[in-house]
Parts: sequence; structure tokens; C-alpha cells
Amino acid sequence: MKTLQELARLVGGSVKGDPRTVVEGVNGLREAGPREIAFLTASHHRRHPDFATEAGALVVPPDLEDLDGPLLIASNPYEAFARIAQAFASPPFLETGVHPRAFVAEDALLGPEVRVGPLAHIGKGCEIGEGSRIYGSAYLGSDVRVGRHCLVHPNATILDGGRLGDRVIVHAGAVVGSDGFGFAQDAQGRHVKIPQQGFVQIDDDVEIGAGCTIDRATFGKTWIREGCKLDNLVHVAHNVTVGEHSILVAQVGISGSVRLGSRVMMGGQAGVVGHVEIGDGARVAAKAGVGRSVKPGEDVMGIPAVTQKEWLRAYGDFRRLPRLKEELRRLEKRLLQLEGAVKGQDDD
Amino acid sequence: MKTLQELARLVGGSVKGDPRTVVEGVNGLREAGPREIAFLTASHHRRHPDFATEAGALVVPPDLEDLDGPLLIASNPYEAFARIAQAFASPPFLETGVHPRAFVAEDALLGPEVRVGPLAHIGKGCEIGEGSRIYGSAYLGSDVRVGRHCLVHPNATILDGGRLGDRVIVHAGAVVGSDGFGFAQDAQGRHVKIPQQGFVQIDDDVEIGAGCTIDRATFGKTWIREGCKLDNLVHVAHNVTVGEHSILVAQVGISGSVRLGSRVMMGGQAGVVGHVEIGDGARVAAKAGVGRSVKPGEDVMGIPAVTQKEWLRAYGDFRRLPRLKEELRRLEKRLLQLEGAVKGQDDD
Amino acid sequence: MKTLQELARLVGGSVKGDPRTVVEGVNGLREAGPREIAFLTASHHRRHPDFATEAGALVVPPDLEDLDGPLLIASNPYEAFARIAQAFASPPFLETGVHPRAFVAEDALLGPEVRVGPLAHIGKGCEIGEGSRIYGSAYLGSDVRVGRHCLVHPNATILDGGRLGDRVIVHAGAVVGSDGFGFAQDAQGRHVKIPQQGFVQIDDDVEIGAGCTIDRATFGKTWIREGCKLDNLVHVAHNVTVGEHSILVAQVGISGSVRLGSRVMMGGQAGVVGHVEIGDGARVAAKAGVGRSVKPGEDVMGIPAVTQKEWLRAYGDFRRLPRLKEELRRLEKRLLQLEGAVKGQDDD
Repeated sequence: MKTLQELARLVGGSVKGDPRTVVEGVNGLREAGPREIAFLTASHHRRHPDFATEAGALVVPPDLEDLDGPLLIASNPYEAFARIAQAFASPPFLETGVHPRAFVAEDALLGPEVRVGPLAHIGKGCEIGEGSRIYGSAYLGSDVRVGRHCLVHPNATILDGGRLGDRVIVHAGAVVGSDGFGFAQDAQGRHVKIPQQGFVQIDDDVEIGAGCTIDRATFGKTWIREGCKLDNLVHVAHNVTVGEHSILVAQVGISGSVRLGSRVMMGGQAGVVGHVEIGDGARVAAKAGVGRSVKPGEDVMGIPAVTQKEWLRAYGDFRRLPRLKEELRRLEKRLLQLEGAVKGQDDD
Repeated sequence: MKTLQELARLVGGSVKGDPRTVVEGVNGLREAGPREIAFLTASHHRRHPDFATEAGALVVPPDLEDLDGPLLIASNPYEAFARIAQAFASPPFLETGVHPRAFVAEDALLGPEVRVGPLAHIGKGCEIGEGSRIYGSAYLGSDVRVGRHCLVHPNATILDGGRLGDRVIVHAGAVVGSDGFGFAQDAQGRHVKIPQQGFVQIDDDVEIGAGCTIDRATFGKTWIREGCKLDNLVHVAHNVTVGEHSILVAQVGISGSVRLGSRVMMGGQAGVVGHVEIGDGARVAAKAGVGRSVKPGEDVMGIPAVTQKEWLRAYGDFRRLPRLKEELRRLEKRLLQLEGAVKGQDDD
Repeated sequence: MKTLQELARLVGGSVKGDPRTVVEGVNGLREAGPREIAFLTASHHRRHPDFATEAGALVVPPDLEDLDGPLLIASNPYEAFARIAQAFASPPFLETGVHPRAFVAEDALLGPEVRVGPLAHIGKGCEIGEGSRIYGSAYLGSDVRVGRHCLVHPNATILDGGRLGDRVIVHAGAVVGSDGFGFAQDAQGRHVKIPQQGFVQIDDDVEIGAGCTIDRATFGKTWIREGCKLDNLVHVAHNVTVGEHSILVAQVGISGSVRLGSRVMMGGQAGVVGHVEIGDGARVAAKAGVGRSVKPGEDVMGIPAVTQKEWLRAYGDFRRLPRLKEELRRLEKRLLQLEGAVKGQDDD
């Protein structure tokens, strides 16, 4: 329970209306009740000026400060709302302590306030930092290092040697540290496995979505750097580096040894071939197939991916194909008439 | 063990040949033995009029009623075959009762005939309806409600607050209720997590394929409505609604807040951007990338997806490009000749 | 610990330099230390003639035999390196024997040297061959047969009746034997499940990537034949056959009843519609959407997939569209002038 004033102080915003308004949680505009705060965007307000809500208060941008209160006015209201929501949120329930039905190797080192759920598996040599939670049925292999305040969800798998920074979240069913896909071919075209002896390092504040698979490096490390967010069912191959604060939307696939810069955005179901570089701040559209390196800041789309500008022009041309065909027909008709005319003159 | 007569009564079909023919199971046309019934389509019969089978009886459409018996003639023979197969089928083996090696929270409520396998996890506050089976190593978080006669397969994960109707099947490795992918950005371009406090509701007779991921809503619910069938590795983002009896083929991805109508069909590896609507009965082709709302009954394909009609025309034009190029060359030649002729006349 | 001479004998190569050079492991060129052997390709050497390494020895192709030793010269150096790496590698740690915290059905038959980790599940009627390892939290259903020297990783699921040959590797989170996606439709457009009563057979030396889903057959078997390698998150539907030594890169999807020949290569995120055949040695490009059968040895790409030759021509035409448009404009201009000229003559 917090007052609107406290929340405004938390996020650096200002209050309109009663600063002592009590807030017990956040909710959607439609779902919120009188003791909850909701979030209203300028665009939503424009489209629905007569919106109805029972929310006890609203987080709004400065251009909506004329609305009736109670309001919490913030220059980046979405971020403010996120931080307020975080202030009320707590991770999914897990009993304190290590559940007796968990398997924890004798030499595993668990920091203070670590919680381990029933049927979780903590292998030998693991180190788990303060306040981290390993939910029931999650699996940590041998020599896994987990930082502080991490969440490893049920049926997630962190294989041997995996390293997680602080505040990392690994969602259910995700796999960190599976073998990279590396094979030599013998003379008969059979595939000879290259043992994958590297590891996966995941830095602070990374979130790995449900069902993702992150392969260990052949040698060295596969590296997901600080603040990256991976949606569900994303595949990251061996020896990839994903730069800080990058976003990989659901079902993206990154082939081996690719280097993504920082703040890269990849849309859903996009893919990248191996051994290329995607520069800082580049954006790859959903479903794109990237077959070459992408420059910093570039926006690419299509299969194979080209710059957005090229793609839009080519797509426009493509859409105009029927018209092009018609123009050709018209030209031919005119040419035919002209040929007749010229022939007629000749015959004269 | 049933007689052909009993089966015909079960599915509303008629018998040709000995109605007392004993049937002990179903099988494929090639695999079936003399005490099994198989299914023969008119098109298969056309292509293979001299097909061989050792099946003791055949389910056939009315146009094949002239075949030698024993036959079970049904107007919708595929449905009849499915229902007969169901009459003989039973779910995968699971011992009766709750296995002592399962973890079941003390306050969990299990209905009659519920079975729980070894190493399954049933969290606090769960309610499981009559006859449902939670297979070994499956995970139910806190406050999960499972209806009657559901199957939750091994290593499937139903996270906190998930609600399943009756006869729901969740296949191995699927995740229901992972966090939605929602972030605000701060001034430094860092991603600030929006806590995802909604839930997932799955209605009666839904089937969730192996390795699927269904995210919980930010607020409110992600909703898979009655009779939907999701193939493997399908991704459904937060706040999506999938209408009744829709079909999502393998590796489909649905972005946040999308609303699918009823009886929508999405082909394999298709994707939809966020916040659009796909109308009742619409069909999205495999691999399509839907970037806008789709009208009821519309068939769309391509990336970005357009109506099938538009796509086919554009694709036809595309395939005719080489011819277009040639025609242009020919026109140019004719023009050149004509220019020569006209110049010649001028020179006269 | 092995000598360079021993390694050369192992892979059929020759030594340059001291044959008694001691090697304790393999590593990347940059990562390797003085007691490790690394791998150098001709192309890497060409691009980085002044490469630096602290490796104690190098595996090189014959064209690099002039380098300073110690060298292990091999005609297929990548294969040689793989085999050397294998000679030093061992599977991830797992304690010998069956862990008391595993669940193993009473009638399960475990061969000599089988290891079963904590919280693994071995159902009734399972048979596990010599030296195989079932890691902690892995799940084997009923009547699963696992050959010799297999690895089933954590949270992998082999459902009832699954059959694995020798030296099969199933990575974490993979599902083998989930129900195929088969439904009849009733008159109301509801989906009536066809019970899936077949099984999955995986032959010797197959590797199944993390998060893959392989559906059981409706009747008969889904069949992954000898030596196939599946990358992560690959979907294989019911009744598919994948021929020997085929490669399916990450996120590939194969629809029902497809037959892949031997040594087929499918690039990442490619998909195939149901009931077609892909011939021996065919190659399907990444992201391709195969809608028809592909001949042996054919290379196909695009959506819908066409031969590489066709695709490259069509794509070239597509890229030349702007030029085509310009040419058309130029022709029109010339035609207009000519029309004027002819009209002028007429007016004369």
C-alpha cells in the first residue's frame, strides 16, 4: 500500500489531486478498481476521449494533465508505470528455504535467502547468489553459477558451467547450455560431432523467454550481455554474442558465431546466417532473413534482408507490376499503329 | 472388442457384410490386421484401385459401397473413423492414484479418479477435476485449476493461476502462463519490465502441442477458447484471444493482444503482428506474415500477407517477369527499326 | 594425455616436428594453451597470415605443411580435429549408478554401466542399453527402448514406446513421441481427435537438438534414420521419415508424412508441407517454404521454394525492376517522338 505522493516520488513525477490517495496495485484501464492505478496514453485518450475507468488514479503524460485527478504526471509515463508496477509486484510464490524434496548436491553453495522448490535439481559445484529462486522442477547442472536475485522457473534447464549474472530471469522450459551444432564430415558424408566444450554466460538483468534454447560455445563462450530480453522460443547458436539491451522477439533464430551489437532489435521469426555482424542499434524486421552483416543503425527487412528503403522501393515496384504490364501493352498497341502508319506512307 | 454393428451404431453409419464381424482396434490400411478396421478414402481408392489390406473391415464413404465387405459406410467417414479410434483408445499409461514420489501441496484439491505420476509437482491451492491425469514430471504451479478428464503430459508446465477447462490436453514440454514480453524503455534505452500479473485461460477440449509457449496476460487473461488445437512449438503472446475451434499449425507465432476469431486456420510457421484482428473463418497460409487485420472468411498469404487472389496475381506477374523483359526487348527492336524507317523517309 | 604421434595414428595423419609433443586437449586457435592442439584452416591462414596462437600443436591441411611445427597434417583436417576432440571429450558429469532420488519402475531393465540421475523418470517396461546415461530430470515413459551409449539430457522427454538406437543424443527439453496433429472435422466444424497410436524410432548416431518436438505416428512409425542431426527447436510431424545423415538446422518444420531422403540438408527456419518427398542429397535453403516434392540433388529456395537457378533468375529480375521501369519510360518517350515525326510527315 502506497500513497500517490510516494509513487510520484519513486518515479520522479508530479501529482494532481489528493496526494494521499491510497494505491494498492496497478491494473489495466478497464480492469482497475478504486484502489488501483492505471496507465493512460495520449493516443488512447485521443481515440477514446470518453473512456471509462474505475481506477483510483492514472499515470499520464504531461499533455493529459488537464484531466480530472487523481493523476500522476510523468514525462515517460510508461516507464513510470512499469516502475510502479514493479514496486507492487513480487515473484511467483515459492516457500522460503530449500525444499526437502529438492535435490541439492552436497557441495553446492547457496547464498542467504535462496529458495529452492520441490523436485528442483542443483548439481555439484553450483553457486547460487543471495535471494535467487530456483523454482520446483528447474534443473541446474554441475558448476552452474547463478548471481543474486535471479529467477529460474520450473522445467528450465541450465546445463553444466552456465553462468548467470544478477537479476537474470530464465523462464519455464528454456534451455541454457545445450551443445552447439557443430559437425565435421567424413569421406562418406557422415557427420562427426565436434565436442562442444565452451559455456554460456548471461549477464545482469537478462530475461530468457520460455522454451528458448541457448547453445554453449564450441570453445570460449556464448554471451548474452547485460539487459537483453529474449522472448519465447528464441534460438541462439554457439559462440554468438548478443550486445547489451538487445531485444529478440519470439521465434528468432541466430546462427553460430554471429555478433549482435548493443540495442539491436530483431522482430519475431527473423533469422540470421552464421558469422555475420549486426551493428549497434540495427533493427531487423519480423520474418526477415539476414544473409549479410548489417551496419549500425540500419533497418533491414525481407528475405534476403535489404535496407528498409530498398525493400520498400522494390516492394512498391512489385505491387506496380500489373500496371507495368499494361503500359507495355499500350506501348505495343501504339507501336503497331505507328508501324501501320509508316508502312502506309511507304506504300503511298 | 466391438462388433461392426456396434461401431456403425456408434457413428451413425450402416454395415455391408457380416454385422457381427469382430473389431478390436483401428489401424492404417497397410498396417491393419484381420481384427482391425481401417479407413479408405475415395481418392485413395481412385489412385490405388487394386489396394491390398488385411483389415477385417473398412470405413468407407457412400461412393465406395460397392466394394466387397465388411464395410462400415458413413457419410463423413473420416469423422466416423476418428470416433471409432477414440472408442478403442485410452490415454497413455499412468498408475491409479497419486504416486508417493509426486509432490502435492497439502491444500491441493484432487477430484475422484485423479492420477498423479512420479515426480509431478502440484503447487498450493491447485484444484484438479475428476479423472484428470497429471503425468510424471509435469509441473502445476500455485492456484492452478484443471477441469475434468484433462491430460497434462510429462515436463509440461502450467504456471500459477492457469485455468484449464474439461478434456484439455497439454503435451510434453509445453509452457502455459510464462510472463508476457512487456517492457518500457528508460531514457538510456534500457528495458524496464512490466510485471505480468494476468493469467491464462484454456477452455474445454483444447489441445496444446508439445513445446508450445502461452504467455499470461499483462492484466486480465490470455484466452484459448473452446476446441482450439495448437500444434507443436506454437507461441501465443500475452493478452491474445484465440477463438473457438481455431487451428494453429506448428511453429505459428501470435503477437500480443491479437484477437483471432472462431474457426481460424493458421498454417505452419505463420506469424501475426500485435494488436490486429483475424476474423472468423479466416485462413492464413503457411509462412505468411500478417501485418494488418484480416476480414472474416478471408484467405491471406505472403509476407506481408495479402489476399490469396492478390498474391496469386502478383506471383503470376512475378513469374512472368522474364517474359516481360523479353517483350520489352522486342518492342525496342521494333521501335529501332521504325525509327530507322521514319528517318529513311525523312531523308528521302 | 596423448602424444602428437598417437593422435596422428588415431586420425591417419602425419606429424611435422616432435612426435612426442604432449597434448592434453583441444581448443580454439585463440584459446589454446601450450598443451592443447588447435585447428587451422587454409582460408583462416590466408586471411590472417600473421595469426598468433599459443597452441602446442596445430591440425592443418597438407597445403599448410610449410608452417613451423609441431603440426598434425591431415587430408580432412576438420574431421581429424573432430576425432581428436572426441578422444579427449567425455559426456557431461553424471554419477555412476542409479541415483536413489531417480524414479525407476520395478520392471525396467538397465544394462551394465547405465547411469540415471536424480529426479529422472524411467517408466515401466523400459530397456536401457549398456553405458547409456539418463540425466537428472529426464523423463522416459513406458516401454521406451534406449540403445547403448546414449545420452538423454535433463528435462528431455521420451514418451511411451519410443525407440532409440545406439549412441543417440537427445538434448535438454526435447520431446520425442508427442501426439501427431490429426483431427477429423464434424459437421459443426469441430475437430475430432484421431488417437495417435504409432511410435517414434530414432536410429543409431542421431542427435536431437534442445527443444525439438518429434511426433509419434498415427499408425506405424515416425522415423529418424541413422546419423541424422537435428539442431534446436526443430519440429517433425507424425509419420515423417528423415533419411540417413540428413541435417535439419534450427527451427525447421516438417509436416506430416513427408519423406526426406538421405543426406538432405534443410537450412534454418525452412518448412515443408505435408505428404511430399525430398530426394537424396537435396538442399533446402534457410527460410524456404517447400510446397512440392524436390528431386534428388536439387537445391531449392524461396517461398514457395523453386530451384536455386530459377530463384536466382527471378530474384535478379526482381532487383532489375526499377531499371525495367526506366527502360519502359525511355521507350515511351522515343515512341512519342516518333509518333510526332510520323504525324508531321503525314501533315506534310
